[in-house]
Amino acid sequence: MSWDSNIRKVTPYIAGEQPRQADIIKLNTNESPYPPSPSVAECIAGIIADDFRLYPDPDCKSLVHALAEYHHVKPEQVFVGVGSDDVLALSYLTYFNSSQPLLFPDVTYSFYEVWADLYRVPYRVIPLDDDFQIVAEDYHTANGGIIIPNPNAPTGVFAELDVLEDIVRRNRDSVVIIDEAYIDYGGTTILPLIDKYDNLLVVRTFSKSRAMAGVRIGYAIGSKRLIKYLSDAKFATNSYTMSNFSLAVGVASLADEADFREKTAQITATRTWFAEELIRLGFSFPKPMGNFVFATHSTVPAADLFITLKKAGIFVRYWNRPRINNHLRITIGTDEEMRTVTEFLKKYLGK
Amino acid sequence: MSWDSNIRKVTPYIAGEQPRQADIIKLNTNESPYPPSPSVAECIAGIIADDFRLYPDPDCKSLVHALAEYHHVKPEQVFVGVGSDDVLALSYLTYFNSSQPLLFPDVTYSFYEVWADLYRVPYRVIPLDDDFQIVAEDYHTANGGIIIPNPNAPTGVFAELDVLEDIVRRNRDSVVIIDEAYIDYGGTTILPLIDKYDNLLVVRTFSKSRAMAGVRIGYAIGSKRLIKYLSDAKFATNSYTMSNFSLAVGVASLADEADFREKTAQITATRTWFAEELIRLGFSFPKPMGNFVFATHSTVPAADLFITLKKAGIFVRYWNRPRINNHLRITIGTDEEMRTVTEFLKKYLGK
Repeated sequence: MSWDSNIRKVTPYIAGEQPRQADIIKLNTNESPYPPSPSVAECIAGIIADDFRLYPDPDCKSLVHALAEYHHVKPEQVFVGVGSDDVLALSYLTYFNSSQPLLFPDVTYSFYEVWADLYRVPYRVIPLDDDFQIVAEDYHTANGGIIIPNPNAPTGVFAELDVLEDIVRRNRDSVVIIDEAYIDYGGTTILPLIDKYDNLLVVRTFSKSRAMAGVRIGYAIGSKRLIKYLSDAKFATNSYTMSNFSLAVGVASLADEADFREKTAQITATRTWFAEELIRLGFSFPKPMGNFVFATHSTVPAADLFITLKKAGIFVRYWNRPRINNHLRITIGTDEEMRTVTEFLKKYLGK
Repeated sequence: MSWDSNIRKVTPYIAGEQPRQADIIKLNTNESPYPPSPSVAECIAGIIADDFRLYPDPDCKSLVHALAEYHHVKPEQVFVGVGSDDVLALSYLTYFNSSQPLLFPDVTYSFYEVWADLYRVPYRVIPLDDDFQIVAEDYHTANGGIIIPNPNAPTGVFAELDVLEDIVRRNRDSVVIIDEAYIDYGGTTILPLIDKYDNLLVVRTFSKSRAMAGVRIGYAIGSKRLIKYLSDAKFATNSYTMSNFSLAVGVASLADEADFREKTAQITATRTWFAEELIRLGFSFPKPMGNFVFATHSTVPAADLFITLKKAGIFVRYWNRPRINNHLRITIGTDEEMRTVTEFLKKYLGK
């Protein structure tokens, strides 16, 4: 025997590459091509070393209150964590203690099954239909929890709220998490329903539309009871997850709504013309509702395109997984970046 | 039935208060009274908002390499997390999957039992002797893991390394964690033994001696196999735990060894005279080897002193727990702060 037998062995999630070269076009992990808001820059300019001597506020009151005000909910309905992955991992640990399986779509964020494996949560994947759509009836089955991203990733497909509300309503004995990481690019949030359904948790991130992936802020909004349980689990794991830096710049980001709207509008505008170009180039894709397009080409395999683009310094995302192994997920960058991609593809595809 | 039945219900850890008033003397959570090193201030001055647009390096290479160099180990032997609590919580999840109980002292960091409850790890507390000392033989018993802080908290007692080595050597089938949060105030590290014992993990923090509690950096050093398992679990939880800010200032802190030594020496010097004053005032305590003194008074109950001090704006730590409910843990602050405390106690105790 050895200590090895006491180890929880896991198959980790494989994140998108984070290459450090400066001269690439990085369209592989859905970051914003624009900097955080000027209010964040201003906040950072005022930060000094002595701000970090003491522990942060473990209740994260400043950021929790700012988020509550922003979303017109009570502070007791808000939980913040180190990116939405932190919030989601803790949610698995907290909410999904059932012998019934957790349900999530077959094509979705691949971390969902990793957390289930890590915390020994039984799960069952529910196939999307042929158009990558959620079918509400498929979730009318015994379960110990449900998690669905809306818009879905990596497909970019937005589920209409009546579909999701049906799932939440028909599963009042389970916690239903709607992961809205990509909601700010044209989707409609399910947030107003949290007061109607105490089993609904909505999760958000500062990593995409707020251009702060490098800060690590995510949050959840739900009923007070849901948030209380999540908060208890956090205080049983790590009292101080959010640095004074994260708290300060998180609050600062929320203070500049005009900049936020301007930049998300710019990204959706870029997405519109880039999607049209892709169609001209022979690609097809579901209607993109995130800051990315999930495209397949009529003749050229996605795996080949992925390698070709990478050689040209254009990083996109490719998964060799069932149903999606002929698709590329291409993040929407600046107009200039997307023009470069378009020009490159035109040449490569001989169009 | 309701979703409530699927919830993992836990009893959270109660952290020390983090009062935000400016005019108090805060000696309750073992923070440094001095600011982070000038190298950290310099680093912060160079940080700009655009540094945070992209995800951080998930492997935290910059900080891992700096720590490896600092401690003369290989990068594959280093793991970093969001404070040592994050590292320890993940260590519980990773290493302590046994039907045999985890062992730790009865008087120790009260988070140890909270993590065991959270992750359903069976555990057994091993009483310290009457002088709050670890007795190695008590750990010569079947177990699924061992965790011991050295120096211990809240007692401040340092265990000689032959005691701990005996425990590590006699338990090669378990992972033994030595939590060295307070090692920099006069203790001798067990780190050199990691190459001899692949079941030994040493955990450290930037929150105390590096004066960066508000940043959230902790780390572990051990055999490559131990670190690989911990890293896999991290990548199954949250790929990006460390912000670009934490990584940058962590590296900066390690670059200024002179400042680090000067400030820890100052704290131990303050501890020496403050301890002598306490003795004159009728207190007794085990030899303090952390940045705090764990004191009991010959006549005045600790609970009364705790309340009296708090009313005077002096925050110290008190636990109403067996064996230690007549002790106060008093963090070592600046000379000026400790003189104020001494003067107050002199008056209050009529000395």
